[in-house]
Amino acid sequence: MSKYKVVFHLHDEKRSTIAISNIINLIKDLGEENLDIELLMNGTGVKIMLKEGECVNKVDYLSNKGVVFCVCSNSLNALEMQENDMIKGTKIVPSGVGELVKKQNEGWNYIKI
Amino acid sequence: MSKYKVVFHLHDEKRSTIAISNIINLIKDLGEENLDIELLMNGTGVKIMLKEGECVNKVDYLSNKGVVFCVCSNSLNALEMQENDMIKGTKIVPSGVGELVKKQNEGWNYIKI
Amino acid sequence: MSKYKVVFHLHDEKRSTIAISNIINLIKDLGEENLDIELLMNGTGVKIMLKEGECVNKVDYLSNKGVVFCVCSNSLNALEMQENDMIKGTKIVPSGVGELVKKQNEGWNYIKI
Repeated sequence: MSKYKVVFHLHDEKRSTIAISNIINLIKDLGEENLDIELLMNGTGVKIMLKEGECVNKVDYLSNKGVVFCVCSNSLNALEMQENDMIKGTKIVPSGVGELVKKQNEGWNYIKI
Repeated sequence: MSKYKVVFHLHDEKRSTIAISNIINLIKDLGEENLDIELLMNGTGVKIMLKEGECVNKVDYLSNKGVVFCVCSNSLNALEMQENDMIKGTKIVPSGVGELVKKQNEGWNYIKI
Repeated sequence: MSKYKVVFHLHDEKRSTIAISNIINLIKDLGEENLDIELLMNGTGVKIMLKEGECVNKVDYLSNKGVVFCVCSNSLNALEMQENDMIKGTKIVPSGVGELVKKQNEGWNYIKI
């Protein structure tokens, strides 16, 4: 069987812990080996990836399971944050919406958190 | 013609009546006979399905038109609610996000409320 | 290469400027010539299109780039607004959700703002 491919979209830092739970629950439900998962963050959602943030341990845990964490550089600029403020390994893309379009065009499913 | 297949995703109880209206408007627009509709609820969105809730009559009306109402068991647990608190006929799934992924993988369209 | 087709969905007037920025950023990222874009507005999101609104100039700018602005007539009715209150050229559809379903059925990608 080919893998389920899922891109989650988060724009609101207030829903950061929900985003993490959603991903954990999805892995529990469908199985790590059956999933490709990316979390695309724009707006204040990018704060999940702050080095000193509350989610560091869970991001680390999920990265080790193959989850890709992807941040919109327009949002970084708007928040006056730098790539260097982000947890190591964070994927930076020119625009979050461009990434969402390209992923869906490649057959990924989309879930807005 | 094959049917339009639509899974609506609701996470916020504050948008419950909007969710119901959206479904009613969709049926009016595209025709009951042309549609397969599921409403997937997670987070506080699951409260639509409470037996003593405000939406009981409309849920009943839409169920009779073939709309499937589907609730995330992780969300039930988080809210300390039981399957037994839900309107009879509610479909319970292991994870709401897993259901959204499987539906999209089967060709269903996705709308976030 | 065929074009990327993207329908953005906005329901909340508070996110109007974000919607406009998202579209501008998408065009910058993937290129006007590679994109078909529609912004579908329902709920209070339809207020973007008010003739006396703050977004008139940007809507005009993006319309000239081929972006289609599409408004749900159910939402207009609920807000007691008329088609005539909308910027000239606004596309009016019977239901916003019906439009979202039809677009996705025709292969358009979906992004909720």
